[in-house]
Amino acid sequence: SAELQLAATENLEQAIKKSPDVLMLTHVNFRTGAVHDMPRLTDLAHDNDTLVIWDLSHSAGAIELALDDCQVDFAVGCGYKFLNGGPGAPAFLYVASRHQARLHQPLQGWMGHRQPFEFETHYEPDEGINQLQTGTPGILSMSALDASLSCFEGISAVQLREKSLALSEMFLSLLERDSICQELTLVSPRDPQLRGAQLSFSHSQAFPISQALIEAGVIVDFRSPNLIRLGFSPLFLSFAEVAQGALILKQIISERLFRDERFSVRAKVT
Amino acid sequence: SAELQLAATENLEQAIKKSPDVLMLTHVNFRTGAVHDMPRLTDLAHDNDTLVIWDLSHSAGAIELALDDCQVDFAVGCGYKFLNGGPGAPAFLYVASRHQARLHQPLQGWMGHRQPFEFETHYEPDEGINQLQTGTPGILSMSALDASLSCFEGISAVQLREKSLALSEMFLSLLERDSICQELTLVSPRDPQLRGAQLSFSHSQAFPISQALIEAGVIVDFRSPNLIRLGFSPLFLSFAEVAQGALILKQIISERLFRDERFSVRAKVT
Repeated sequence: SAELQLAATENLEQAIKKSPDVLMLTHVNFRTGAVHDMPRLTDLAHDNDTLVIWDLSHSAGAIELALDDCQVDFAVGCGYKFLNGGPGAPAFLYVASRHQARLHQPLQGWMGHRQPFEFETHYEPDEGINQLQTGTPGILSMSALDASLSCFEGISAVQLREKSLALSEMFLSLLERDSICQELTLVSPRDPQLRGAQLSFSHSQAFPISQALIEAGVIVDFRSPNLIRLGFSPLFLSFAEVAQGALILKQIISERLFRDERFSVRAKVT
Repeated sequence: SAELQLAATENLEQAIKKSPDVLMLTHVNFRTGAVHDMPRLTDLAHDNDTLVIWDLSHSAGAIELALDDCQVDFAVGCGYKFLNGGPGAPAFLYVASRHQARLHQPLQGWMGHRQPFEFETHYEPDEGINQLQTGTPGILSMSALDASLSCFEGISAVQLREKSLALSEMFLSLLERDSICQELTLVSPRDPQLRGAQLSFSHSQAFPISQALIEAGVIVDFRSPNLIRLGFSPLFLSFAEVAQGALILKQIISERLFRDERFSVRAKVT
């Protein structure tokens, strides 16, 4: 049986040196946008006989990934963030080739069966990566994700990365020009190379500000307790849209538009 | 740890009398279409201190269900069959109210958390039935299922049942009139009350016949090794369409149209 131990970012290397069986890390922190150093931490884990699972939910489609080069063991990720598949889009799994033959997945699912259309009485998993499929794929969701992925054709991960950083740097420079925006505290790394395709700001009124932004057409996330999170999706966001977003944020703060009562109503999904 | 024991239909009551912890039954057999007697078998299981899980995948939307009246413990089912949600549509779970407070589900998922948008470090399941939600719902798939379910408004389960049985009885009577169709063997119960909303026939050439039917616009399933399965979806299939389907099947068999080579090519999904 497994025991879960959480490590704070500042104690991460120390924790790895204790040789846990598995190191599970989110490549880009969903709150701050800070990026872990995948090559270095993967190496460090392997030096300590630790297997690595990276969560790429906030990386795929926005930042260069070289899982094979880094000798990553396993990875998971979602299709609904920078891959633009929409809420509930299919997720993905990565298993290094060297692990696939010995793979065992505990969840039995129709599509993971060796012969799904034989309808045998006993479950026999397919070999390797195929056994990780479970139920019938959601065809509508797969179709939407497929259409989205086709938009990436001919665009390199390096280009995506450059565009998203240029967008977020422009946004920051527009805010920094304005004294009223000093009440927003950047919690993402100021060095663009150290963050993913997002910027997070803390503000005591983060929730109503987020609501006011969304009503004005700037779709952001509120993350408890006091964060406003902005994603700079490189594929379809234009510089003009990001500049317009900065203008709207300034106006909401300078004119105290977030004080309207309707922006304080909490829905189930924030 | 659990041990799986399979019981043949003819030994089912004997198996229940051995008081297994859980009895898991598919209400309508996916091959033959035969319906289990839910009230009687649920009672028998309870008399033997056995919990019951019914799989309603081939029942929901086609046959009357009275889970509370039958004191069913748990049920599962899919949205992609007679609920018409399309392949990969959301599935459903039923847990009797009396079990909900003591419920524990082993799969941790974002939406099953007590406060999914607090993003706490430790997983704390929501109470009762809510903890059974796992990941982000597939919004596209939910929307399609929602649209399909709205078509059921104002229609009772009794009406659906009558229509599907009338459709399948008409189909059978059309086949029975024709001597060539005697080479098809009905493996579903001949008594309509003992079957769900499907008819299955065995035939040595079941696979190519199924392929020829599909090419002619009559969408059926082939089920290994030799079954042709026809679903009589009561909501949108008309009597005229079913009569036309019978005509096409007769023609495929009498003219040996299934012998064309292209109908023997096996795809991954049959």
